[in-house]
Amino acid sequence: MAPASRLFGGIEAGGTKFICAVGEAPQTIHASTSIPTTTPSATLAQVIAFFQPYPLCSLGLAAFGPIDLARESPTYGHILSTPKLAWQGCQIVDILQTQLGVPVAVDTDVNAAALAEFMYGAGQGCDPLVYLTIGTGIGGGAVIRGRPLHGLMHPEMGHMLLARAPGDTRPSGCPFHEDCLEGLASGHAIGVRFGAPETLPPQHEAWTLEATYLGQALATIATILSPQRIVMGGGVMHQPHLLPRIREACARTLHGYLPRLKTASDFEAYIVAPALGDTAGVIGALYLAHEIGCL
Amino acid sequence: MAPASRLFGGIEAGGTKFICAVGEAPQTIHASTSIPTTTPSATLAQVIAFFQPYPLCSLGLAAFGPIDLARESPTYGHILSTPKLAWQGCQIVDILQTQLGVPVAVDTDVNAAALAEFMYGAGQGCDPLVYLTIGTGIGGGAVIRGRPLHGLMHPEMGHMLLARAPGDTRPSGCPFHEDCLEGLASGHAIGVRFGAPETLPPQHEAWTLEATYLGQALATIATILSPQRIVMGGGVMHQPHLLPRIREACARTLHGYLPRLKTASDFEAYIVAPALGDTAGVIGALYLAHEIGCL
Repeated sequence: MAPASRLFGGIEAGGTKFICAVGEAPQTIHASTSIPTTTPSATLAQVIAFFQPYPLCSLGLAAFGPIDLARESPTYGHILSTPKLAWQGCQIVDILQTQLGVPVAVDTDVNAAALAEFMYGAGQGCDPLVYLTIGTGIGGGAVIRGRPLHGLMHPEMGHMLLARAPGDTRPSGCPFHEDCLEGLASGHAIGVRFGAPETLPPQHEAWTLEATYLGQALATIATILSPQRIVMGGGVMHQPHLLPRIREACARTLHGYLPRLKTASDFEAYIVAPALGDTAGVIGALYLAHEIGCL
Repeated sequence: MAPASRLFGGIEAGGTKFICAVGEAPQTIHASTSIPTTTPSATLAQVIAFFQPYPLCSLGLAAFGPIDLARESPTYGHILSTPKLAWQGCQIVDILQTQLGVPVAVDTDVNAAALAEFMYGAGQGCDPLVYLTIGTGIGGGAVIRGRPLHGLMHPEMGHMLLARAPGDTRPSGCPFHEDCLEGLASGHAIGVRFGAPETLPPQHEAWTLEATYLGQALATIATILSPQRIVMGGGVMHQPHLLPRIREACARTLHGYLPRLKTASDFEAYIVAPALGDTAGVIGALYLAHEIGCL
């Protein structure tokens, strides 16, 4: 018989579903499943049941935040204060490590997606790289000098402040901030402010505002972090008319100030769709596992 | 006689003056001078005359931006489009290298200041570290994984978008942007909008707005870059009442969202004055020279 394969597990833990995958390498996925995000006990029981049959070397977890990534912290690997109240304080890394008996590497979903796009996707050779996901919520991650960005915690780009467009007095979708990116431009916010995004035609004013706010956010990211490229993922970005309008709005906000971002083709190369589609998170998770290797 | 010392040169090239220093180590300065910033030919002639008597190993240049820091670029080390029109296109690195016959390392003034505060000052052990200077203009630099942040170019934090405070209809001080940090909160902007900063008493509304805008900017930097600490330098920060008010405004903007920034003492540790005072830029420049060493 052939020797057992070196197998790695990856989880993208999102607010709606947990995507779990098993593979020999980050881009070689043998089996995968999607498990609804309900309570920690129910969801994690199914996650563990999925992985248990496989002789894993290690597991990578790409989780929604905020999550404690500081190894020296007593709450390392715990979910911190989150609107998903059932998950607040969940010791997700400890649980997976104990139940599956393998080392677990953890990062945010968007840092993992940034890493995957940097290694295999639309961000190859672009360092720093920023990955922004516009879904139910908004999150941003970054790779700098080849590694995901950690600091005081991890980026929380969804909660950067924006300038409201004149006349936009609709409520924010964020319970914390009247004028943050997530509160004005997430899928949830569009729903609260205008109606379900998938029902709104391209000419709806919601999309004009969406492009304006995302363009503002990208301009601010460009001035602060100076990424070489920004990858825009998430369900809201499935609207095909949106990406060109975001590039235009970003150019309007920057107003020619940055010497490397002047022409339409500069912006086409700068603000791009993911190459890994919606799989960047779980590929990033497998990459984190692969880095641990087989002990 | 003792052998000749290993001497390094450092220049902080600012919009008002060039500070030049010679030292054996970044913090051991033997001689220094300040030369007014006029035209490239006049200013650089005096700079070169200052350094010429010293047997330098190398020179570090901490320059106002935008400046091209991409080594592979045909305009490497040139000043790019800047409101200081006489300096636009100035091949400052080439000129210094040729005239002084030593290798020159270059970075932005604020990246160099961030490096100096990270190595010797208020940012020791804090990675990433952000250094923001609030002077005539506003600039921001960062150290990440021990090195100054470069990407598409370098950070241009002065031009991040802010949300205008309700009722603030005064003009922007930035020719590019109606609502950017530099346009609303630089020393020049305060002057245009309210009068010379040093003449305004602490209770003047200009300072309330100043704290609001700087607090907004720091909140946005915290969400995007997640620095472990932010150092606030520059002439405007000499107002002793300002730092506590900025911390409060930053806390109001974040509104308790970031788990590591909740209490007043969290913000006191997070947003700090420079330890190197106004010498961070030139010490950073000497550090850049010291890294080249003696060839």
